[in-house]
Amino acid sequence: MLGRTYERENCSAARALELVGERWSLLIIRNGAFAGMTRFSEFERRLGVAPNILAKRLADFVTNGLMEVVDSEAGPRGRSYRLTAKGRELNEVIMVLTAWGDRWAAPNGPPVVYEHAGCGGTVAMTTTCTGCEAHPSGTDVVARTGPGATAYQRAAMENRPSQ
Amino acid sequence: MLGRTYERENCSAARALELVGERWSLLIIRNGAFAGMTRFSEFERRLGVAPNILAKRLADFVTNGLMEVVDSEAGPRGRSYRLTAKGRELNEVIMVLTAWGDRWAAPNGPPVVYEHAGCGGTVAMTTTCTGCEAHPSGTDVVARTGPGATAYQRAAMENRPSQ
Repeated sequence: MLGRTYERENCSAARALELVGERWSLLIIRNGAFAGMTRFSEFERRLGVAPNILAKRLADFVTNGLMEVVDSEAGPRGRSYRLTAKGRELNEVIMVLTAWGDRWAAPNGPPVVYEHAGCGGTVAMTTTCTGCEAHPSGTDVVARTGPGATAYQRAAMENRPSQ
Repeated sequence: MLGRTYERENCSAARALELVGERWSLLIIRNGAFAGMTRFSEFERRLGVAPNILAKRLADFVTNGLMEVVDSEAGPRGRSYRLTAKGRELNEVIMVLTAWGDRWAAPNGPPVVYEHAGCGGTVAMTTTCTGCEAHPSGTDVVARTGPGATAYQRAAMENRPSQ
């Protein structure tokens, strides 16, 4: 059995994956964020996920502050789970995964598109450089140490021009 | 043992997760995309991932067109794996996971920041509406059926204003 954490990693992407990297996690979040689902029975039916797995994921989301229980007296299957701001902000992760899948794994075209509720325009995630307002991609984006880097990271990354 | 696929899903995010949703996958891609790593031994040492897991992930990446083997005669541990365009474009998924982790799980500040190689400015992923150029977030972004939607998805989603 593989663990859930990446203890050696001082990395925000690794921290995020510890919370939502397990099977079904992001699809449950997706259905909460974009289909407005809250009820256990609704997630179970629409996703076809085993109820023990679903119960574990939802309980972990509550523990980690991604969801909150709305009507705790309804019993497990009638219970509702609502995304918190922390959970809802994962909609951006889902949008970027969708965009990548649309480009590389959607031979019939995008199954789903994202729209701006205000105006009906298509919403896309793009990189933007706060310096020059360009939209760099690929090797034009490089990782540098930030304020939370360890001394080890500084030594490793500052010796590599492309890191 | 959980499966790797989401057969019932007609969803590009689910397709993406089938290819990179397993443990270690995105951290291996991250080290290829942002640390320039290619060698098996380098991934193994820096990530501390078990060699059998690493070998499986890299082989799957090659099978699925995310990486290509550069020097196949060097033997398993000396072999190099280079990201293809398909694999490299996952850098945006890693950037968004990082941004979320920075906001919600980085009490000491971001360990890593992303910079524009051209100008040194900070690079961030943002939503942009192609209609009105706003940067909508949260519930202002809604999912609609796209050209690749199934009849079932159309029926389900077009009856829900918020979906």
